[in-house]
Amino acid sequence: MSQHHFADRLLKAIDERKTPLIVGLDPVYENLPASILPDGTTGLVVSQAERLAAVEEFSSQILRIAAPHVPAVKINIAYFEVYGSAGVQVYQKLVQKAADIGLLVIGDVKRADIGHTAAQYAKGNLADNHFPDIGVARGPDSVTINPYFGIDGVAPFLEVAAQQGKGLFILLRTSNASAGQIQEITAADGRPMFMHVAELIEKWGEELIGESGFSSVGAVVGATSGQAIAQIRRAMPHTIFLIPGLGAQGGSLSDCLPAFNGRGHGAVISASRSIIFAFREKQYQGVPPDAWTQAVENALLTTKKEIGSVLRIR
Amino acid sequence: MSQHHFADRLLKAIDERKTPLIVGLDPVYENLPASILPDGTTGLVVSQAERLAAVEEFSSQILRIAAPHVPAVKINIAYFEVYGSAGVQVYQKLVQKAADIGLLVIGDVKRADIGHTAAQYAKGNLADNHFPDIGVARGPDSVTINPYFGIDGVAPFLEVAAQQGKGLFILLRTSNASAGQIQEITAADGRPMFMHVAELIEKWGEELIGESGFSSVGAVVGATSGQAIAQIRRAMPHTIFLIPGLGAQGGSLSDCLPAFNGRGHGAVISASRSIIFAFREKQYQGVPPDAWTQAVENALLTTKKEIGSVLRIR
Repeated sequence: MSQHHFADRLLKAIDERKTPLIVGLDPVYENLPASILPDGTTGLVVSQAERLAAVEEFSSQILRIAAPHVPAVKINIAYFEVYGSAGVQVYQKLVQKAADIGLLVIGDVKRADIGHTAAQYAKGNLADNHFPDIGVARGPDSVTINPYFGIDGVAPFLEVAAQQGKGLFILLRTSNASAGQIQEITAADGRPMFMHVAELIEKWGEELIGESGFSSVGAVVGATSGQAIAQIRRAMPHTIFLIPGLGAQGGSLSDCLPAFNGRGHGAVISASRSIIFAFREKQYQGVPPDAWTQAVENALLTTKKEIGSVLRIR
Repeated sequence: MSQHHFADRLLKAIDERKTPLIVGLDPVYENLPASILPDGTTGLVVSQAERLAAVEEFSSQILRIAAPHVPAVKINIAYFEVYGSAGVQVYQKLVQKAADIGLLVIGDVKRADIGHTAAQYAKGNLADNHFPDIGVARGPDSVTINPYFGIDGVAPFLEVAAQQGKGLFILLRTSNASAGQIQEITAADGRPMFMHVAELIEKWGEELIGESGFSSVGAVVGATSGQAIAQIRRAMPHTIFLIPGLGAQGGSLSDCLPAFNGRGHGAVISASRSIIFAFREKQYQGVPPDAWTQAVENALLTTKKEIGSVLRIR
């Protein structure tokens, strides 16, 4: 499969790591392990710069723990933008670092605008080789984007994806409680709005189908119900799903099953807080603070095993 | 009207400057005036840092030109993100600078995510006092956001807006060619999808209605047709419209009329390229390069006059 095609690269990495599990990096200072905090304790006044440094150190360790076990990491830029431009610089460094240690990177940026402005977002958030002055030359392998503008907001990202062998995951059916307010408005043909979006995304991805049969244009599909995922899968046979929110957002593994084919291809499942903050769980209370990395790795391997067994059962 | 309420402040500024025109700042290096480029000429190889410095200088001058004449500036972050974190830092400095010279600032960031992540975006992109280490203490007065997630993606922004007297403009009906692919899907009740979004936005803004009768929760409504704007206005009597794309995106002034009440309140009209790049128009060829600021001010004043006369005619 082509190394210059995002979907092909992603499926190859899934086969090599033997899992569609990816780690979502949503670091929050307040949840960091005590051993990483500036002064080894919580509750003291620390500067924004110290907080950001701790978030960077934690994130780097998460990447190091994840690299041998999963094909990709999803880094959510919101948790870095909260520190302003300094945080964005850390995000950029982490994208580079993840790539350096062999992880595919999904930049969870959820950008969207029209034509010329979308082209700026695509250059700034997806393309490689755009910040030579500041020492970061690499964009993520894929980004999440919002479909609300129609193809005008998507085309500039498609162009970068085609030129640089990169990918997109376009928001389709999200897993949050109020997602239905817009996404499930019933259309005149009786179907929910998101099924119209599904057809659009499948079509937008047609030109980027790789040797694997899957397109580099994916869709974000929450693990809301197995029925919804099956319905979406029928409308989008060539689209890789990014299924977020396993665990924390209430999705269940068996609901994800209709996304996959017999070879275990068709989706990546992202778990974030349940893995990266596993050391905060009750069973780790009293364990030495620097044992947090072991808790994270254990949670990752447990989730990976669960997914493996559910996919094989099928 | 309350100084701690975004809509009240905006309408007061509109009355003071006698126009609902706002300037959209979408700076592109390739379009900058020759007198601002690093070496006074175009076409030579310049570093990203030099480009960004030129964009910053140009943007600062645009703000200075605009400040006496218009109530607000809309700064589109995409044109700064294209320079990575260094660009984001310039964006933050420009937000502060605009506020310092008396302009209200709309941060055109079009962010959206769910719950906890949206809260990070709201802190990082709208709230004040969040980057003390890097010398920028002020967020914009308002930001644009995307409604695709429903209220979950909006609530954290509402919270910051309520606490800090700030505002939102939520994407509703955009003016790009493909906007209809999703926004105009016909719902089961025969209405286009965007009319459902209109009702949601009006409702989301209910708690933030100020002394003016308008809410700090606005909506982005393209100047696509006067009929569409009238239809949307009927569904959202308390919502301020942000009408982008006058000129460059093909909207016409008379189409905007139904957005306004008899006092000239109800919308801000954003013009970007037709003002900030006015010096590139044919009539300015041969004029000395450093006369570009005069061309920009002329275009701004001409547009302001046109809007004034159309609004008064009504």
